[in-house]
Amino acid sequence: MRGFEGYKIGKLFKYLQDPAIISFAGGLPSSDVFPGDLIRKAVERSLTQDSDRVPQYTPIPGEEELMAAIIDYLNKDNIYIEPRNIMVTTSGQQGIDIVGRLFLEPKDIITTDLPTFEGALASFEMEDSEYLAKDIEVDGSDVKGFEAGIEDLIARGRKPKFIYVVPDFQNPSGITTSLEKRLALLSLSTKYGIPIVEDSPYRELRYRGEHTPSIYSLDKNQGNVIGIFTFSKILCPGIRVGFNIAPSEVIEKFSFIKGANILCTPKLNQDICTAFLREYDLDAHFKRIRDYYSEKLKFFLEAMEENFPVDMGVEWTKPEGGLFLWITVPEYINTLELFHMAIEGKVAFVPGEVCYPKDYLKHNTMRINFSYPTKDEIIEGVRRLSTVIRKYQAKKRKKGKGVSPRGFNMPLASL
Amino acid sequence: MRGFEGYKIGKLFKYLQDPAIISFAGGLPSSDVFPGDLIRKAVERSLTQDSDRVPQYTPIPGEEELMAAIIDYLNKDNIYIEPRNIMVTTSGQQGIDIVGRLFLEPKDIITTDLPTFEGALASFEMEDSEYLAKDIEVDGSDVKGFEAGIEDLIARGRKPKFIYVVPDFQNPSGITTSLEKRLALLSLSTKYGIPIVEDSPYRELRYRGEHTPSIYSLDKNQGNVIGIFTFSKILCPGIRVGFNIAPSEVIEKFSFIKGANILCTPKLNQDICTAFLREYDLDAHFKRIRDYYSEKLKFFLEAMEENFPVDMGVEWTKPEGGLFLWITVPEYINTLELFHMAIEGKVAFVPGEVCYPKDYLKHNTMRINFSYPTKDEIIEGVRRLSTVIRKYQAKKRKKGKGVSPRGFNMPLASL
Repeated sequence: MRGFEGYKIGKLFKYLQDPAIISFAGGLPSSDVFPGDLIRKAVERSLTQDSDRVPQYTPIPGEEELMAAIIDYLNKDNIYIEPRNIMVTTSGQQGIDIVGRLFLEPKDIITTDLPTFEGALASFEMEDSEYLAKDIEVDGSDVKGFEAGIEDLIARGRKPKFIYVVPDFQNPSGITTSLEKRLALLSLSTKYGIPIVEDSPYRELRYRGEHTPSIYSLDKNQGNVIGIFTFSKILCPGIRVGFNIAPSEVIEKFSFIKGANILCTPKLNQDICTAFLREYDLDAHFKRIRDYYSEKLKFFLEAMEENFPVDMGVEWTKPEGGLFLWITVPEYINTLELFHMAIEGKVAFVPGEVCYPKDYLKHNTMRINFSYPTKDEIIEGVRRLSTVIRKYQAKKRKKGKGVSPRGFNMPLASL
Repeated sequence: MRGFEGYKIGKLFKYLQDPAIISFAGGLPSSDVFPGDLIRKAVERSLTQDSDRVPQYTPIPGEEELMAAIIDYLNKDNIYIEPRNIMVTTSGQQGIDIVGRLFLEPKDIITTDLPTFEGALASFEMEDSEYLAKDIEVDGSDVKGFEAGIEDLIARGRKPKFIYVVPDFQNPSGITTSLEKRLALLSLSTKYGIPIVEDSPYRELRYRGEHTPSIYSLDKNQGNVIGIFTFSKILCPGIRVGFNIAPSEVIEKFSFIKGANILCTPKLNQDICTAFLREYDLDAHFKRIRDYYSEKLKFFLEAMEENFPVDMGVEWTKPEGGLFLWITVPEYINTLELFHMAIEGKVAFVPGEVCYPKDYLKHNTMRINFSYPTKDEIIEGVRRLSTVIRKYQAKKRKKGKGVSPRGFNMPLASL
């Protein structure tokens, strides 16, 4: 573990201190849509009514009231479970980390998409994991690629320990997995006995298109799926509460690990989430945040159209929800180099390479968070981004490299 | 990790549901000494003054204000550090777990006392650790035993990764390490290049005797010691905040792990701790909790004298502080068996075997928490404990075993 460097994004954040920088780097939801009054009310009540219990340890799997509220909340999404299928976590990040700690021995293999959530990569790296990873497609995971890879591994006496996916508005790509592919993932899981870890932080944030059933609900409690949820994107990240759902025997083992990791989740923070689920007008709240974020996405996409003519060779995803989109630039552009130029140009993004496992690095992508900056910042930020990319291209052109108008997939040697 | 069963104490707690049971099992501080008003005030202020930041992610190492308050707090205990030497944790348990994750590869060796803190054993077990462990002595660690063991390991090409100790009123034994032995541990650490992990949850809870300098302060920032602290025993466990102190390069690596584990600690919970350190009359608060707990300890020790005549062969420690003491019963008594009889007799304790690494199990000890029950419960609980032990002895006597009045160290075969 001495070489472990954690979230690679973290090291980039030190460059973002300058307030003149417009940042598309963060994963922050906007503060404008936080229900501050609800938090205040919930805390006040806990301190009044539960003043004896708030200062004490809580049960490792979670407070009964919160677990009951979660069950009702998930019912609306066609997930039908009992308290023994839930463990409250101290963040979705912990939910992922505990999955890794339970399932992975050193050098064990995880099946996942390229790119995938960097926080999951960071957790799994602590278990010294390896990957069977395939480029994500416009409608989600390359399930056929996964199956071919699994067959290949089995032929060599190995098998992935689980399939990790973010089916709804994936962080970082913004891509949503189609119903067809969700069913295909489930068939794959059943056929080879490999559980699916379905990470669902953004599920409520759909701005257009049809609601797609979760893989957990499609599995109908057959025990093939572990669901990872967080209150971070629907309530707020600052509360640090999430939950995992799974077969009860898995939840029991999760709880052993949670106990030895942090013992329990604070009651005050859980009570805020219970109040959020039980007393807040969730439909109105989700409509408000959806309207708010989808407008930001619209501004961002319009600004991209305006500033990136086709001949620049820049492409981007058009997510149906979530907080992120994904930009692919011509292959000769290294977005980590570009990041440092962008900082000088007062705009920031996340170089996409942090979203790939170590053996699968790609250097010509970037993750964009569109939910945090204001409308004006979005418009100006995209303009700056375009300027920086043009500058990078001009610099390379001088050096006689990468002059092709559309540089996709062209090896440097051919230029 | 599939076989991992976490905190073994946890599984015993399900037997404690019956409210008629008087429990000496918990590690709970008493609710009577929690500063509820302070918590209320701190939360109200955070939600008012920092309403933008409370809902957001916080820096992984901790909030600046809390780190500054911790520095001033530690100054009074002759520890002089800078913010780069601190990482705020989401509990002391997390602080320990992160140490294990950073330092331990599978089969790595930890040097520690017998018995030792069960939560540390649970965390380190997740890293598949092994132990060089020696019986704790009345004045703390068997440092000579440690050195002989280390020499022996070095001769076989191995070396412990760190020395884990709880020098002040150790959980579970209640034993305090003398100044002389603290210095000897430090010499050992320097001589062999093995860091000391000093876990200090109970340090403020001294009821009698002289204040002994922490090993961290004795090291004078030479980088041999990692300090683990928690607000659980001085403020309250329900807040889930602690901190690790260490050389800055170690803190940096801790932060990488914390990020991939839970990302960050909630601001609201940190703000409560900042208010506690900055605004509360700590001297008066610590005096109040010391008076409160030391009285409980006195009741407990008096009840023991009364109910356990010397001929029962039962011995116990007389701690100078903390929340626990340690009872040793004759060797033929298995305290896990006794635990189940005790539940029937409506009294509970922690069977001491959970406080030993797997290769060092002992079955004739028990951990007692004296801080949570009331005075009357203590008196009645000790009476019940005595009855249960007599009953166990009578049962064994019938079977022709363990009839020696003082059964210490007498092999069963000789009885």
